[in-house]
Amino acid sequence: MPLVRISLIKGRTTELRRRIGDAVHRALVDTIGVPERDRFQLITEHDPYDLVYDREYLGIKRTDNIVIIQITLSTGRTAPQKRALFRRIADNLAALEIRREDVWINLVEVAKENWSFGLGLASYAPEVVAA
Amino acid sequence: MPLVRISLIKGRTTELRRRIGDAVHRALVDTIGVPERDRFQLITEHDPYDLVYDREYLGIKRTDNIVIIQITLSTGRTAPQKRALFRRIADNLAALEIRREDVWINLVEVAKENWSFGLGLASYAPEVVAA
Amino acid sequence: MPLVRISLIKGRTTELRRRIGDAVHRALVDTIGVPERDRFQLITEHDPYDLVYDREYLGIKRTDNIVIIQITLSTGRTAPQKRALFRRIADNLAALEIRREDVWINLVEVAKENWSFGLGLASYAPEVVAA
Repeated sequence: MPLVRISLIKGRTTELRRRIGDAVHRALVDTIGVPERDRFQLITEHDPYDLVYDREYLGIKRTDNIVIIQITLSTGRTAPQKRALFRRIADNLAALEIRREDVWINLVEVAKENWSFGLGLASYAPEVVAA
Repeated sequence: MPLVRISLIKGRTTELRRRIGDAVHRALVDTIGVPERDRFQLITEHDPYDLVYDREYLGIKRTDNIVIIQITLSTGRTAPQKRALFRRIADNLAALEIRREDVWINLVEVAKENWSFGLGLASYAPEVVAA
Repeated sequence: MPLVRISLIKGRTTELRRRIGDAVHRALVDTIGVPERDRFQLITEHDPYDLVYDREYLGIKRTDNIVIIQITLSTGRTAPQKRALFRRIADNLAALEIRREDVWINLVEVAKENWSFGLGLASYAPEVVAA
């Protein structure tokens, strides 16, 4: 269910981009119960001047290795779950030698009925047919 | 009012991309009452490794022809309207020989006052001036 | 906190893209109290047929110079604040000789707890530890 958009400055290898996607997905599975196979991600690379970030907002020192992650997911996660997700994404990316300061995440929440994973069906809110 | 983001793996012709956009817009007009001229779409193409999808989540067999559609629209549509929209998008894309399994849709809902279609005005929530 | 996505048809200079980003950010700071350093923007350019817009929806005459701006921000702004933001973005872009008719804006609102600006923390909803 999540749709994950990952935005990077150009220059990482295909392999590293794949591992970044893996790291984010693993965190979703392990902290908020996203199904293993529920993986849909869009990775885009930008020229440096087209990915604009502040180098020290909130006192956090960011670099051109910044990873901007916007995740659209269903409503229903608690604040502690979101905190666990953020922490785990940062941990998993740290294992790829991406500084935790460079992990930027935003969640967009939508209703369960707002997803169709194929076949033109509302996958999580199917039509109920009276008996 | 909808902002439609369509994400594809590279390789389709300009003409087919246009027809995919047409198909999605037609469904919005015909099922949830979007005005004919209210069409704003962003189409992006990705290298195969930058558009990550699961080939069988929920038992639906997807291929590299997957069409990922994220639609931002105003709140207020009912679940049956959303189901009708999903079905129609899949039907319209099927007419372009895109398998229904490859049609992936997500809706993001926002308040009516969150749109400006030009001139710096809140198009659907204009300022009310007392007489 | 806002994540600003700016979509353009290809052809503007790097310098003008930067100034468009500046103009949008300045409006956010001046009208809805976004901190000066809270600037995160993704600019993407599209081939003309991949940025689809209507040339006269709502009677507003748009051209290929259209600037599509989607801003994800925290909930809590009033309708008057949003109107002030829309107006100011259009004013600031007009100073770059972008017609006000070509300024297209959408806001997506999310909970305050949905942001992590780094370090794996929920920046605006940190964990409260009992004494």
